Amino acid sequence: MRPNKLRELWSAGKKANNCWLSLGNAYAAEIIAHQGWDSVTIDLQHAPADYKDALAMLTAVSTTTCVPIVRVPSNDSGDIQRVLDAGAYGVMCPTINTAEEAAHFVGAARYAPLGVRSAGPNRAVLYGGADYTAQANATVLTIAQIETAKGLQNADAIAKTPGLDMLFVGPSDLGLSLGTTDGRANPTDKPTQDAIDKILATAHAAGIAAGIFGTTEAFAKAMFAKGFDLVTVTTDATLLGAGKALAATR
Amino acid sequence: MRPNKLRELWSAGKKANNCWLSLGNAYAAEIIAHQGWDSVTIDLQHAPADYKDALAMLTAVSTTTCVPIVRVPSNDSGDIQRVLDAGAYGVMCPTINTAEEAAHFVGAARYAPLGVRSAGPNRAVLYGGADYTAQANATVLTIAQIETAKGLQNADAIAKTPGLDMLFVGPSDLGLSLGTTDGRANPTDKPTQDAIDKILATAHAAGIAAGIFGTTEAFAKAMFAKGFDLVTVTTDATLLGAGKALAATR
Amino acid sequence: MRPNKLRELWSAGKKANNCWLSLGNAYAAEIIAHQGWDSVTIDLQHAPADYKDALAMLTAVSTTTCVPIVRVPSNDSGDIQRVLDAGAYGVMCPTINTAEEAAHFVGAARYAPLGVRSAGPNRAVLYGGADYTAQANATVLTIAQIETAKGLQNADAIAKTPGLDMLFVGPSDLGLSLGTTDGRANPTDKPTQDAIDKILATAHAAGIAAGIFGTTEAFAKAMFAKGFDLVTVTTDATLLGAGKALAATR
Amino acid sequence: MRPNKLRELWSAGKKANNCWLSLGNAYAAEIIAHQGWDSVTIDLQHAPADYKDALAMLTAVSTTTCVPIVRVPSNDSGDIQRVLDAGAYGVMCPTINTAEEAAHFVGAARYAPLGVRSAGPNRAVLYGGADYTAQANATVLTIAQIETAKGLQNADAIAKTPGLDMLFVGPSDLGLSLGTTDGRANPTDKPTQDAIDKILATAHAAGIAAGIFGTTEAFAKAMFAKGFDLVTVTTDATLLGAGKALAATR
Amino acid sequence: MRPNKLRELWSAGKKANNCWLSLGNAYAAEIIAHQGWDSVTIDLQHAPADYKDALAMLTAVSTTTCVPIVRVPSNDSGDIQRVLDAGAYGVMCPTINTAEEAAHFVGAARYAPLGVRSAGPNRAVLYGGADYTAQANATVLTIAQIETAKGLQNADAIAKTPGLDMLFVGPSDLGLSLGTTDGRANPTDKPTQDAIDKILATAHAAGIAAGIFGTTEAFAKAMFAKGFDLVTVTTDATLLGAGKALAATR
Amino acid sequence: MRPNKLRELWSAGKKANNCWLSLGNAYAAEIIAHQGWDSVTIDLQHAPADYKDALAMLTAVSTTTCVPIVRVPSNDSGDIQRVLDAGAYGVMCPTINTAEEAAHFVGAARYAPLGVRSAGPNRAVLYGGADYTAQANATVLTIAQIETAKGLQNADAIAKTPGLDMLFVGPSDLGLSLGTTDGRANPTDKPTQDAIDKILATAHAAGIAAGIFGTTEAFAKAMFAKGFDLVTVTTDATLLGAGKALAATR
Repeated sequence: MRPNKLRELWSAGKKANNCWLSLGNAYAAEIIAHQGWDSVTIDLQHAPADYKDALAMLTAVSTTTCVPIVRVPSNDSGDIQRVLDAGAYGVMCPTINTAEEAAHFVGAARYAPLGVRSAGPNRAVLYGGADYTAQANATVLTIAQIETAKGLQNADAIAKTPGLDMLFVGPSDLGLSLGTTDGRANPTDKPTQDAIDKILATAHAAGIAAGIFGTTEAFAKAMFAKGFDLVTVTTDATLLGAGKALAATR
Repeated sequence: MRPNKLRELWSAGKKANNCWLSLGNAYAAEIIAHQGWDSVTIDLQHAPADYKDALAMLTAVSTTTCVPIVRVPSNDSGDIQRVLDAGAYGVMCPTINTAEEAAHFVGAARYAPLGVRSAGPNRAVLYGGADYTAQANATVLTIAQIETAKGLQNADAIAKTPGLDMLFVGPSDLGLSLGTTDGRANPTDKPTQDAIDKILATAHAAGIAAGIFGTTEAFAKAMFAKGFDLVTVTTDATLLGAGKALAATR
Repeated sequence: MRPNKLRELWSAGKKANNCWLSLGNAYAAEIIAHQGWDSVTIDLQHAPADYKDALAMLTAVSTTTCVPIVRVPSNDSGDIQRVLDAGAYGVMCPTINTAEEAAHFVGAARYAPLGVRSAGPNRAVLYGGADYTAQANATVLTIAQIETAKGLQNADAIAKTPGLDMLFVGPSDLGLSLGTTDGRANPTDKPTQDAIDKILATAHAAGIAAGIFGTTEAFAKAMFAKGFDLVTVTTDATLLGAGKALAATR
Repeated sequence: MRPNKLRELWSAGKKANNCWLSLGNAYAAEIIAHQGWDSVTIDLQHAPADYKDALAMLTAVSTTTCVPIVRVPSNDSGDIQRVLDAGAYGVMCPTINTAEEAAHFVGAARYAPLGVRSAGPNRAVLYGGADYTAQANATVLTIAQIETAKGLQNADAIAKTPGLDMLFVGPSDLGLSLGTTDGRANPTDKPTQDAIDKILATAHAAGIAAGIFGTTEAFAKAMFAKGFDLVTVTTDATLLGAGKALAATR
Repeated sequence: MRPNKLRELWSAGKKANNCWLSLGNAYAAEIIAHQGWDSVTIDLQHAPADYKDALAMLTAVSTTTCVPIVRVPSNDSGDIQRVLDAGAYGVMCPTINTAEEAAHFVGAARYAPLGVRSAGPNRAVLYGGADYTAQANATVLTIAQIETAKGLQNADAIAKTPGLDMLFVGPSDLGLSLGTTDGRANPTDKPTQDAIDKILATAHAAGIAAGIFGTTEAFAKAMFAKGFDLVTVTTDATLLGAGKALAATR
Repeated sequence: MRPNKLRELWSAGKKANNCWLSLGNAYAAEIIAHQGWDSVTIDLQHAPADYKDALAMLTAVSTTTCVPIVRVPSNDSGDIQRVLDAGAYGVMCPTINTAEEAAHFVGAARYAPLGVRSAGPNRAVLYGGADYTAQANATVLTIAQIETAKGLQNADAIAKTPGLDMLFVGPSDLGLSLGTTDGRANPTDKPTQDAIDKILATAHAAGIAAGIFGTTEAFAKAMFAKGFDLVTVTTDATLLGAGKALAATR
């Protein structure tokens, strides 16, 4: 089975970067995947995209060695299994608040005896290889988002969920939940930064990876400097946003 | 009928800017249209997009006052009429090389007695208004691309085509055709610049507008300075391209 | 942020009408939205349509001032948030039977501290404005359908759910659940009419709006006369149904 | 091979009615096809629809015995053959102005030795039967639209094109071309009516069928009364238009 | 209402075969449906397909008398009702482990008073007939998959769920769950065979049908010989797989 | 730029096989591409597929080293350029009958100074490499189908078209045009076989490759034995057809 490059990078003591895909468009995904990112995250929670878009984007990303992660809309077993069957090498679940929720999420993503994932990969076999079912549990990444006060409180128990591979901070929602921001990206206020530090430390203490979302180079570099293993540096929609500054050109 | 804002700008002695849509994605189109551009060009020639994408993009752009232009793949009457029926307020035809080709193009875009466009607008009535058929000939823009040595040679005859509203320079193809470039965008070599100047002058001499494609602010400003009435400043795909510089962030 | 015209109408003591969109087609939606309706409901429960259709229909409706409501298939947090992120100004949930279900529904639709909606609107920012996240809780409508005997029994508790804006009667299901009809639309039997009256009174007693579905002008007028704040008068599929009477023309 | 019900009706001395499909939506097409129409016309010229929509609509119509006709955007061999391969039992070409154009159109729709259609039906074999290639020339209808002054002038020569099955009047374009109307549907002015009469007589004199487009029951009945063999009585979009009168209901 | 041919076959003491649709493609579905199968299963759990694909496939299959079953991704009320509204004549739910889960599944698929299905069929009325709502409970099949050790243990209680029509064995998952196989199809090991026998006997003891999935003619014949009422013989993806043996042709 | 594996095989004195894609489905394309074929042909003439399907299929095939060829519906410059821009490494044009038609076809596929292809690749740059525009003329294959009596007559002149890379026999159409078959695949009658031999010899005499379509292993082997450089061995739809023999399994 094709190895998971993110696991390889981390095993080699390296960090990985990530570009978020918020447009839900396969051609944009293929452009981004060819830019040299270690990984991309296909967003199905907040992007105007659905499963079929993810399928097309997974295919597009598979023309490169960039690792495709998919964020599902919610902790739904059907959705989790379908993006994995389609070839995601990482699956991210938003808003994990308790260890029970984490166990449900991880269980949906793992074949027996570790979980309850149903056998029947489609593109995953083409992308991963003929031994996909046997190797998937050890290859595919499960990523739980910590992005609420409650998730923060339960971060330690969540991090210890058997089979979970990463805690991933959603800083916008975290600040909104803590009441310290209005939901903006790249928050730098102290309470949110403290929460970020705590999640990072909790993940590493549990022996799993830590990741975080950002949309500016400065924020991303600060997060890499803190020690995050995976940092989202920008999004395709953020890149498009630079057009606003040019719209006054005459 | 909703007036054509580009005609209004030019009547007021102003110039108009343009953002090119090369991703073929309606959400990207809506983001761009909300950035304040005077117009966008939905590309069906070189973008990975077809008529149905254009339809969705026209709808998305119609949520703003940004003027939607569609570039058709070729001088095909069916294509020209279908994008107009769908609500394009400008239609651009690539590679017009002769006055005959220009006449064919304009004829397809105009109702009798000026042309042979068939009656039956769909979204165009919703976007333009109930009097669309009566007012379309005077409202919708027809734009011929000059982008070959042959087109350059015949530019004067083309510009004099009754009902044609603009000559639009395709500098990449023009340089490739002249043999002075390898087809790069924003060419600054003297032969291509001379050709650009000639086309600009020819359009204005014929009393019609002149437009040109570019992908950098510097090139666009230089073209506005020359006197072009419509200049493409950037494209959605170009904006995405900026991600490449960030892909090394760690 | 763009105000919600339905809230404005009600504040001004007026009633609002509604056309239901059962075809799941964006062009049909745009035609209907241009007919002058105060609002439309994009149905994802019983129409042959999914999230991507709703996205296209929301875009199409956004070319007018008609208020777009989306009915989700079930009380699923992911679905509720995704249609709001896409720009729905009202979200309707079918078959709310208990106050707990109502609280789950409303919670999914409201940002902290009122609920658990995750930050990350996409089209909603383009449609609503840059201050969307800050103003959404006060702008977007949450609408609970009462359409079972159990929901009827719990209507008062449901109506008092903090943050709920409307009870909306589903008369077909209500009659079917009460056992008084076979699920037909526009029921006029006394038990169903009594149930309708009770839901209307319960909503108004709780200080929230009351709405109801119908497919004939006569039924709709009767419901407006009862005092409903929002009444569905017809559907796009119902309008198509009139073709049956013409199919014998020869 | 499944017989063409329109040919059967005409052989039996009966007339056939038709509903036009202008929405480009397969579910709307299936609703209409179940209403009892003899035939439907899937419009690819003026509807916001493309080949893939036609394919889905042809499939939807194939669940009934209603005969599916497709109008292609223009006299393009590729388009003509593709809708036939997909199972259209009639193909209509807009704006046939000369006998040469008619011959090109018919040639594209007929297998050797009558024409140049390439072998390779897809859905057509499923819909028509295993002997499709052998029987298609005698089964599938070719329909030329006469809708310009020039077409009117050449109607006789067009009607005599070997293999052509019907002249179909496009009254909106015809009136616009003659300069007697502004392109409205169901024209009743004398010059257009005279032209209609002439086309009808010309078709019958040549031993082929005559058809015409309309959108009201009154116009359709008048055309049946004149002797037209196929008359379009309404369109799906026209039916939706009735919603406008209801949008004031309160 | 159109009768359910599977119920008719079983009433006549016959068995039914089935072809699984794993490609998610409507044209492939139409090809398969024309091959003479008694039924097809449109898979939404493991195929790269979603609700809109199922809708298109249901339409394609409706051009024949082949009975369309849809397998939903999970025991979700919204999904179950939507595929039925779209015209599925059987709905299959994966991984039913308990009687409670079975009751939830069946309840979602039945109208009151047997369940909580909401009234509002769309294609189902076109496919089934005008009396769909009244007859659906007695016509549409509900099929529970037994494919885990837990489901096996609870098979008897599951089989006795009022309104359930069939137990359907998922042998790949069953073997994986039992730990006797690695999830391969068509398992012949004794423990899995014993489990298969037990499920078959349990279904028949409860007076309902028994079905099973397979991908080879040999396995299917063995299952028919055991007494299964419905057996999946192959899948469209399995048929494509035969291309591998030809790829060395030179 | 990524080399064209077909050119490499031929340079090495080897032959290449091909699988035809008639389903128009990206997942089927990805399955086939992973089976080890040297090349696939994405059919846009007779398959129920359009440009957007080809785009998705090209992306899917790009996850392997299999060479993607696209057959366009007709000799249309727009279509030819769009599939090349999307990353086709070979473009096939049906029914080339004259040297003029061949020159038009090849001209559309080549950049200046060899032709008139417009600069602006999209996926082609991602698939081929940054130097795509400079290297495309020498990399991309142009393939003319000879499949009529007229094309056969002019085969020599067609084969000598500068820049043409292959004559490709369409045996079904050829037999139909010659009047020796009813359009069946894999024809073995002497006149068609003689014509096939002549086209093969003509191509090789002109120093270009020869290819042919077939759907059985036996026919393909016979064609390889004759000396064809590229032979289509089967199609995805042909593979599905094997299901018919299984549909009687009980």
